[in-house]
Amino acid sequence: MDSTTPEIACFEAGIKFGSLYHQFAGTPVSPDSSASLERAIGESIENQPFCTAVDVEILDDKLEAALAAQSAEYTELTGRFMKVEITIDYEGATVVASMAMDGDYPRMKLDRVERP
Amino acid sequence: MDSTTPEIACFEAGIKFGSLYHQFAGTPVSPDSSASLERAIGESIENQPFCTAVDVEILDDKLEAALAAQSAEYTELTGRFMKVEITIDYEGATVVASMAMDGDYPRMKLDRVERP
Amino acid sequence: MDSTTPEIACFEAGIKFGSLYHQFAGTPVSPDSSASLERAIGESIENQPFCTAVDVEILDDKLEAALAAQSAEYTELTGRFMKVEITIDYEGATVVASMAMDGDYPRMKLDRVERP
Amino acid sequence: MDSTTPEIACFEAGIKFGSLYHQFAGTPVSPDSSASLERAIGESIENQPFCTAVDVEILDDKLEAALAAQSAEYTELTGRFMKVEITIDYEGATVVASMAMDGDYPRMKLDRVERP
Repeated sequence: MDSTTPEIACFEAGIKFGSLYHQFAGTPVSPDSSASLERAIGESIENQPFCTAVDVEILDDKLEAALAAQSAEYTELTGRFMKVEITIDYEGATVVASMAMDGDYPRMKLDRVERP
Repeated sequence: MDSTTPEIACFEAGIKFGSLYHQFAGTPVSPDSSASLERAIGESIENQPFCTAVDVEILDDKLEAALAAQSAEYTELTGRFMKVEITIDYEGATVVASMAMDGDYPRMKLDRVERP
Repeated sequence: MDSTTPEIACFEAGIKFGSLYHQFAGTPVSPDSSASLERAIGESIENQPFCTAVDVEILDDKLEAALAAQSAEYTELTGRFMKVEITIDYEGATVVASMAMDGDYPRMKLDRVERP
Repeated sequence: MDSTTPEIACFEAGIKFGSLYHQFAGTPVSPDSSASLERAIGESIENQPFCTAVDVEILDDKLEAALAAQSAEYTELTGRFMKVEITIDYEGATVVASMAMDGDYPRMKLDRVERP
């Protein structure tokens, strides 16, 4: 069957999460460079269609804990070092979705779907 | 409002497309290496949850045309060199989505949503 | 034979260029988001060992020309949209290397090697 | 001062390592998909100039140990799951370089430089 407007909005939200994660996972990051990376990730993904807001928080306390337990002074960005919330508006449907750790897995989930 | 099962399936389909594109865009590719890349992309994304099939076709004719018009003997993978179809099964909902060029833009779209 | 100190410095310079390019190629970018991306790329790669300076310039005029010729309002970062200069200091050897377009190819090259 | 032929060969070797790591870090991988990913990584990077051999080994035993300790059935490719050896030939200079874990850090190093 054909997709509905809210289903397309959810699809678009998923695209943004997958893009964000796999574009930026692996980026060298430290507490000194996390602020510029947060901003660049948000502004980059906001370029994509129907994406009205991207809020990225890199978790400096988690970064510091990781650095304290290893030899190098930076690490690679991965899901356990960030929280993300993305808002999509598509033809009157609004979707808010988020990513945060669920145990050891970076879980992406739909928080709210407002149908037109 | 809460999301429905088909909306979550569509969200999951979007995640896979964003992941696939932004993980592999930029990969050095030529007609000689496209077959192994196709297979690796498909098997890699099939690891992700609820993803039952990933069919990637790298378009060797488009690659060859691009190489004929430039100096280097390889190029970087981008949307105009591939077609992708992904199937998601989530709690009885099935979503089939695809990516192909729509003019000059690599369009990801929902082709079919089967609700439980 | 064993590698010399300047050879190791040149190897380190190459690592930084390959990292920078393949981490960030494919990032959605527009003239509105290029400043934050420039800064994040530079600060990110400066985290890597022996890397004393990374200067990234995203070429807004090239971005604008690309956007004027296509339907979408953003594009994907690739070599033709940036110039990069990286400085490496390794045990008294200094290497300055750069990337810029050489015809249609993003050429990475050693500009200067100062031996200890 | 100008760079020497072996220094350029070392720079090229570094480019390949940085490219390989940051293109493929973050790729979803499991023991079932590691063979196709190994092959695709090798063939992809061999497209780059002066690169005569890329040998990638994804360490299935390390993958299995990681999966046994977590909830998801796949993980993201990172340095601790692979060994890599790359050979560069540039104008009569041959460089062999490798990446393997050095404690908790994926160390890239020059193993051998043969000068023309």
